[in-house]
Amino acid sequence: MPVNQQILLDNRPAGEALASNFKLVSSPIPELADGQVLVRHHYLSLDPYMRGRMNDSKSYAEAQPLGQVMIGGTVGEVLQSRHAKFAVGDQVVGMGGWQQYSVVCGTDLGALRKVDTSQVPLSAYLGAVGMPGVTAWYGLVKIIAPKAGETMLVSAATGAVGSAFGALSKARGCRTVGIAGGPDKCQYALDELGFDACIDYKLHANAASLSKAIKAACPGGVDGYFENVGGMVLDAVMSRMNAFGRIAVCGMIAGYNGAPLPLSQPALILVRRLKVQGFIVSEHLEIWPEALRELGTLVATGKLRARESVAQGIESAPEAFLGLLQGKNFGKQLVKLV
Amino acid sequence: MPVNQQILLDNRPAGEALASNFKLVSSPIPELADGQVLVRHHYLSLDPYMRGRMNDSKSYAEAQPLGQVMIGGTVGEVLQSRHAKFAVGDQVVGMGGWQQYSVVCGTDLGALRKVDTSQVPLSAYLGAVGMPGVTAWYGLVKIIAPKAGETMLVSAATGAVGSAFGALSKARGCRTVGIAGGPDKCQYALDELGFDACIDYKLHANAASLSKAIKAACPGGVDGYFENVGGMVLDAVMSRMNAFGRIAVCGMIAGYNGAPLPLSQPALILVRRLKVQGFIVSEHLEIWPEALRELGTLVATGKLRARESVAQGIESAPEAFLGLLQGKNFGKQLVKLV
Repeated sequence: MPVNQQILLDNRPAGEALASNFKLVSSPIPELADGQVLVRHHYLSLDPYMRGRMNDSKSYAEAQPLGQVMIGGTVGEVLQSRHAKFAVGDQVVGMGGWQQYSVVCGTDLGALRKVDTSQVPLSAYLGAVGMPGVTAWYGLVKIIAPKAGETMLVSAATGAVGSAFGALSKARGCRTVGIAGGPDKCQYALDELGFDACIDYKLHANAASLSKAIKAACPGGVDGYFENVGGMVLDAVMSRMNAFGRIAVCGMIAGYNGAPLPLSQPALILVRRLKVQGFIVSEHLEIWPEALRELGTLVATGKLRARESVAQGIESAPEAFLGLLQGKNFGKQLVKLV
Repeated sequence: MPVNQQILLDNRPAGEALASNFKLVSSPIPELADGQVLVRHHYLSLDPYMRGRMNDSKSYAEAQPLGQVMIGGTVGEVLQSRHAKFAVGDQVVGMGGWQQYSVVCGTDLGALRKVDTSQVPLSAYLGAVGMPGVTAWYGLVKIIAPKAGETMLVSAATGAVGSAFGALSKARGCRTVGIAGGPDKCQYALDELGFDACIDYKLHANAASLSKAIKAACPGGVDGYFENVGGMVLDAVMSRMNAFGRIAVCGMIAGYNGAPLPLSQPALILVRRLKVQGFIVSEHLEIWPEALRELGTLVATGKLRARESVAQGIESAPEAFLGLLQGKNFGKQLVKLV
């Protein structure tokens, strides 16, 4: 039996997260008990929510315990099974964490799910047809509730959530505009992801300048906004929201490391009669099947061609994760483990 | 025929509103044309929204034109009628403006409505059983959607909107807490308005201190908040919102005069999965009949005993209005014109 390389959270960040917050260790793989399944991970998913888990503060999710394997979504293949529902060779998605192998109880609700890779590649179950895709679906369908012809805007547009949001918004007949960092990402949003326009926030030093660029890209104003970043971008978007606009708040990555970033003009919530609503997709499991069906179809039919950034080897996970927090990734950030 | 004393908006405020922004004039009352009704106003309603109308900025409502009678809700009595629907002596509610008399087209939808004063006093149709009451109803019922046993909080608790909110919240089995300025208002909220607790914001110099007081008054946290003031109060309340809390944004009076007041911790919208929604009650006319029925019953049965601050004479309207903006009123601010 090979050893299992794992990455633990070793200590909590004081401000910015650092590679030294993590620790690589090797552990033996235990014998399976009845009902357990051994999975070899092919890909590990890296996602911004993990930064929140690294803090000890009372937050909306449980803190990641120190000295334990970092949590994270994984896809892989069943190597051994002592559970009737799973056979050797099954391809599965789960929450295996930052490690090469995991031993899972096959009965735990949602711990392990078999997936069909005939039309959707295995890695997509961590992105477009996984938690990030469902996140985009929930924010768009359940909070923003777009009408055809409205203008939808999303920040971090080429990321896993943003690219799914773009395809879902286009499928509903909306003008679909992205915000991304750098000319390459913006070009990709237009050429490959089907966005109608994309704004490079790095060209703008302040909210007023970014607000002008949003006006140019959204001449009819913004009806729905999917928030992944917060800070200056949110201030700029707020100034361009139409009356009765809806803002789905999924992430505020800009404020994860330091002092809270204020919102400059909350009175716009009243003046424009906005609805601003935060959500966590794991609290809405009832919508996952419907969302995954639509997302799977979009991927299988080529309407959602989400890009991936793939780091190689478990030891590369910490640096890849820190790069994700700084926007260095381009598309869904994965770590390939085989 | 008597002359009609009127108050016009003479010039726009630069920062704080001043008495010199207004001008008192006298005009003759014109002869009625076919379909018109002459109303003698008994009471003029003063409301915070009027401050927004004094600005020229593109806002959510039309600016009050200079040189014209200030807009405002009125109740009164029909003095002359050339409209079949209205007879001399009818008691009516309308938008007669800051003047002693108005000539109204009886056919204009919603311009004039007959009211029954057998169980509800005429002035209440400007407060508890009028726009302020319906405002409280919409925010509570349609945005917050409270469940029995939840904790509801309202700022400006002894004002026209806040006192109606309190009665409506108690009627739904909620723990109902107010925020008001000064010991007299807080005592009144407890003794007469039926609040379970009331916090004197004037005892707190900053949001952290006010937040502690909210925690003491709302030991189970806050599930629904009706926002009338903004600024420090909103920051303090945000910190005490429970997961899945709802904030109905009706007013941000604290920011009406100057620079926009920022919101310190917008990330709480995500962390606590809050819904924050602004609204203007005049855009939801479909709910008025249902809301007015409930509010009328609460007043007629003594369950809503809203206090009034009554200034005497049209010439007192500007000072009474400026006092309202500073929180000097105690309950619904009216001007008695007869």
